[in-house]
This record gives sequence, structure tokens and C-alpha cells, in this order.
Amino acid sequence: MAETDLRLARVALTLLAEPGTRAVHRLVARHGPHEALSMALAGEIPDEAARDAVRARLGAGDPRPAAETALATGERLGARVVIPEDDEWPAQLATLEHVQLAGTDRRVDRELAPPLCFWVRGAWPLAEAFDRSVAIVGSRAATQYGEHVATDLAYGLAEREWTVVSGGAFGIDAAAHRGALAAGGLTVAVLACGIERAYPVANTALFERIADTGLLITEWPPGADPLRPRFLIRNRVIAAVTRGTVLVEAAARSGATQTVRRAIALRRPAMVVPGPVTSAMSVGCHEILRLHDSARLVANVGHVLEEVGRIGADLAPTAQGPENPRDQLDDQATFLLESIPRRGAISPDALAVRAGVDIRTTLRKLTLLETLGFVTRRDGGYALVPLALRRREPP
Amino acid sequence: MAETDLRLARVALTLLAEPGTRAVHRLVARHGPHEALSMALAGEIPDEAARDAVRARLGAGDPRPAAETALATGERLGARVVIPEDDEWPAQLATLEHVQLAGTDRRVDRELAPPLCFWVRGAWPLAEAFDRSVAIVGSRAATQYGEHVATDLAYGLAEREWTVVSGGAFGIDAAAHRGALAAGGLTVAVLACGIERAYPVANTALFERIADTGLLITEWPPGADPLRPRFLIRNRVIAAVTRGTVLVEAAARSGATQTVRRAIALRRPAMVVPGPVTSAMSVGCHEILRLHDSARLVANVGHVLEEVGRIGADLAPTAQGPENPRDQLDDQATFLLESIPRRGAISPDALAVRAGVDIRTTLRKLTLLETLGFVTRRDGGYALVPLALRRREPP
Repeated sequence: MAETDLRLARVALTLLAEPGTRAVHRLVARHGPHEALSMALAGEIPDEAARDAVRARLGAGDPRPAAETALATGERLGARVVIPEDDEWPAQLATLEHVQLAGTDRRVDRELAPPLCFWVRGAWPLAEAFDRSVAIVGSRAATQYGEHVATDLAYGLAEREWTVVSGGAFGIDAAAHRGALAAGGLTVAVLACGIERAYPVANTALFERIADTGLLITEWPPGADPLRPRFLIRNRVIAAVTRGTVLVEAAARSGATQTVRRAIALRRPAMVVPGPVTSAMSVGCHEILRLHDSARLVANVGHVLEEVGRIGADLAPTAQGPENPRDQLDDQATFLLESIPRRGAISPDALAVRAGVDIRTTLRKLTLLETLGFVTRRDGGYALVPLALRRREPP
Repeated sequence: MAETDLRLARVALTLLAEPGTRAVHRLVARHGPHEALSMALAGEIPDEAARDAVRARLGAGDPRPAAETALATGERLGARVVIPEDDEWPAQLATLEHVQLAGTDRRVDRELAPPLCFWVRGAWPLAEAFDRSVAIVGSRAATQYGEHVATDLAYGLAEREWTVVSGGAFGIDAAAHRGALAAGGLTVAVLACGIERAYPVANTALFERIADTGLLITEWPPGADPLRPRFLIRNRVIAAVTRGTVLVEAAARSGATQTVRRAIALRRPAMVVPGPVTSAMSVGCHEILRLHDSARLVANVGHVLEEVGRIGADLAPTAQGPENPRDQLDDQATFLLESIPRRGAISPDALAVRAGVDIRTTLRKLTLLETLGFVTRRDGGYALVPLALRRREPP
């Protein structure tokens, strides 16, 4: 099956080069995953550094059987592989194609290409989960203050049906996930290692809770170690997949400040929570606010919503990926669809009030939405149909 | 004596209208203090609101004898009256002439004219004291954090021979003065009432210490009450006389944030110390940072110096006031003069090292500086001659 082959080729490519490698991404963009893999296997990568790196990894053997093993392992772990050819692929990741970080020449700062694939645990289709999402990042060695603020912001965002996105570390990352979970919201941990690696191990229970109701995702195949540079490679995804990034606490030049720098380069809202100037854990935050005019100080969830609300639907790059089926809906249908809660059902009456649409129109449009496969009747009302369950459009 | 008459006329005018009244300032600028006073007494003020206010105060009787009494009282209190005609008048106050605050129509936000005179306790000539000065302002109900930061910043500034300027309130104001005093530095309290009014009374001892080594100044004559609007009227002076204003802690829309707004309108560095977003006492600080692109976050004394250091000698309006006698000095003499400590004497050897000038040149230039009246021999070295003791230039 061609689709499986696409997945296999992409996974094999991630075994040959670290995610973000521009030369590999360009090959795939120009020639497709199969041809790109063949070229990589034949050493035909224009970029010398990438060619050398791929050659070194080829020393470990043909990546195709290894990719098959990885896919089988993933399936056993309950992890699916999502690729750009899938409907649920978040289109906004394409903004990574041309982004450049100013004033740096480190490899991890140059190799910012979009991911080749994601390993995913959790039921939510990626595009839907990330449609209204905010990253909350910060220091591992957070203070009580930082954890309190991160939890509070995540709770407030989740309560308003925004997805919270972070890494899987102690401190701010964990506090953000806990806040979102406490609000019964959707939270996503973007890992920098294999999906089965609970790293740090002490967060194992947290990861399980996240996978149950939200998403665990990673670009790395099962078995991949959480190597130091991978956290920086991963950070470009956190910045690019969300509508904005909030930095809560960070020491000077910490990894979390690097996520914010990526958000700034991507022209996404870069939001920073200040703290006491006497706290070393706020030095990185204040540094960002002092150095970057586009970074905005935020002190509460209202400030965050003000920033991420602004850009609205401008997030997705124009004419990128398959046509969004929602584009066919008229304004009222779109409005009604947007007003249906992410979880649970809503009665037509309640929906009409929430969307500010009269009840007759509401009923008519709900029938249309049901016919198109966007909603389903449940518990005497209507509920959203997850994107993954909808009819696949022909490619 | 004409000079006494000028002072008397200006003091009489301050008895007829609150400081900052533009109509009165314009009269003085166009016709001189004497003629302006005559016109005010005759009810010839073009602005209706100002005319009515002056007429109401004239009901209390002729302001000239009251002004004479005030001057006699001031002398008894050890306070001198400084007027714009004096060499020591800080020329930078002229920037208040045309400044406008955006988005407000309150009287105190419109009436921002330069002061007509100052009542002063303390030996320092105003122009010298304010030449390198930074305002540190903030909340009366400051937290321990805010007081700590204010004290620390003031100490650091005073240590580097910058004058600290603030009001006379509890909290941040008092903490700033204490920090500067602890460093043996020069600190100035700008009051919003008569010079003899220790307000708040609990700060009496602090005011005495400030008057001993620094300056207590006010625009209001002896006996004037610390009325609420006067703090806002006073704030324009704190913003205009310094090279920049640092806001340490402030509740939303507090008086201290108003000082920063005045600094912004005057295009002076407006610096803000952030704090925990969980603290009500930092809400005003974060508000300023969010609303004003020109406001800069500062976390330490280095950040403050970076801001106020930038504008250098640009502060004084061009072609304003008498020529500065220092303009006649060559680079080496200027450098040596700048290197002499504000207090105490320095040996020629130590001065040569400090200024990075060879000892022969140092001795030659010191002789020149002594002849010109800039320095005097004392304690086996050389010390600065305060501006007030120098020969008056012909007007």
C-alpha cells in the first residue's frame, strides 16, 4: 500500500538524519519521500555536511528494515505515525521552511526544516489539537512562583478550550500540563526522544495522563535517546505548531529562551512572564523582553489571549496542503461549528445562544454539518466528529 | 534690588495659581515676572479657567505682602528661593514648555508648564545636582521586594555619582533616598507642599538627613498643604529634571505610573522594574511595559545606566540659558574636572590615574582649573568648587 510506503520512507529518512535537516527536507519537497530516500541511500545529497552525516548513519545498515521494525514497535506501543500527506498534519509547520534565526551559526539554529513525520500517542487529530494552541515553556529548575504562574495560565487557557503545548521536563513544562489537565483541557507534550521513553522517568505518570486525554508526540522513532541537542531541535516544533509561545521562567540563555527566539523568528506572538529581578530564574525572561521589541510582557491569561487572538486564521500558510473542507461552509455554519464544545455534546438551543444564531438557522445548519460529517447526534444533542474519523478526501 | 524683585514677583505668582499653569507661564515668558504679575493682578490672563482661578485667590488679598512674608519665612527656615534667572536653574526643565500627555483631559495632565521657582534646602546648586540624575519612583504601599530593589538601585547609582531624585513618601521614595544616603551619595526629595512641612511626619528624620547632604526642594511656598493633586503636579518636575525615571513598584494607574507617563511624553528614558505577576504592586509596572513601546524593562543598575548614559549631553535644550563656562575647557581639562569626586579632595597623583592623564599635564590643567574657579586646594589635594560659590557671569 502506497501510503504505508510513504510512512516507511519518511521514517527511514529520520533514521538517516536528525529532524530539521534542511538538505533532507528539500530532497523530500522536490522529489517525494521515496525518491528522496533512494537519493539519500545513493549518497546523492547536495549538502556536504548532511551527506556526511547520512553516510555515517548508513554504516549501521539499511534504514528500511529498521524503519519497518520501528513502525511495528510503534504499533505495539499504541503510537501512530502521522505524516504531512495525512489530513491531520498541522499545516502551520510549513512556516519552518524558510525561517532563519538571526545572529547565530550553530547547527541547531540553522537546521530548522519542518518535521518529516510525528510518532503520536493519543486520540486527537493533530491539526484539530493544534488549531487553537499556545505553548507554555520555561525552566526545569523553576521556582514555586514560576510553577504557580505556569499552572494558572495553562488552567485558564484550557478552560477557554485552548490546547496547551509544552515539553516533558520538570518545572514549567510539567506545571503547564498539570494546569491544563486540572481544567479537563487538552494538553500536548512534544518529546525529544522515542515515544516510549518516559524522560524524565519521574514524569511517567504524567505522560500517561497526557496520552489518555491529550497527545504525546515526537519526531524521533522508538528507542531514540533524549540527547541534549534534540531538545533544541524539538523546540522549533513547539514554536511553529502553536499560535504563540509563553515563556514563564528561564535562566539566561536557557533552552526555553531558544523556543521563544524561534517563535520570534516565525513571527508568532512571543510572550514573556516577568518575575522578581532578584530571581535568577527570571533573568532569561527579562533578557528576552529587553532584547526583542516584538516580545510582549504578559501577566495573565487575558494578556495571552489578546496576543494569540489577534492573528486568527492567518496562521496557516496560504495555498498550502489540501483544501480545508471547512472552507466550503458559509459564515453561519462555520460559526456554529466553532461554537460546538471540543468535548461532549450540546443541545441545539444552547448552541444557538452560544453562537448568536437563531434556532431555525441553527437546526438547518446542524443538518448540513451532520451530512458533511462534521457533527454527530449524541446524548440528545450534537457533538464534534474528530477529524480522524471523517471521510478521507481523495489526495 | 532687581533680583529680589524678580524672586518676589515669581513667588507672588505661585500664590495666585498652582505651579504648572500654562497661561501664567506664558505670561511670564512673554512679559517677564513683573509685568506678568501686574497683568495677573489686573485680571489680564487670556485663559479663562486660569483667570477665574487667579481671581478667586486674589480674594484672599494682595499676594505681594504674602510673598514677602513667605520669603522671610523661607530665610528663617534656611531655605533659598531659586528662579530660572539664576545660574543654578536646571535648564532641562524648559522641556516642559511644549510637552503634551496623550489620551487625557485632566487639568493636572494639561497644566505641565515649567516651575516658576523652587524653595530649596541643602547646599548643592540645582543644576549641578541634577546634571547626572535619575528618578526612582513607586508605590507608598511597597512590598519588601520593591523596597529592596529601590534601595539597591539607588545605592548603585549613588556609588557611581549619579544623583537620586524621588518624592518624600513612604515605600519606594523613602527606600530610594535611604539607598543613596547609605552610599554617601547625593539624593533629592521633591516635595508637594511647603518646605517646612515634613510630610509624612514619620519621614522627618529622613528629610533632615536629605537636607544635610542632599536637597529638599519644592515649588510651593512655606505653609502650603500637601493636597492630593499637588503630587501629580509635582511629578512633572521629577520626570523633567532627571535624565530618566525608574518605576519600581506601582499599583494600576497609581501616581507613580503618572510620573513615568510624563517621562515618556518628555522623551526621557522611562524605565520599569518588573515584579511577580502575582503582586498587585507590580500591576502598574507591567501595565506601563505593555502599553508603551518606549518604556524599557530594567533589572539592575547596569540596565539603568545603559538607558540614561545614551542621551549624554543632549538633555539640555539647545541655546537655552547662559553659556556653560565648561565649554571653554579643552578635552583634558574637562576630563580631569569630571574625574574629581563630588565630595572631598583628591591628590593630583590619584586624579592623574583616575583620568588617565599624565601627571605633568594634570598639574598644569589643575592650575588652569583653579584660576578659572572650578577647583580649590584643600587637604593637600584639589576639590570641586560648588557652582553657587563661583563668580556670577554678567547676565
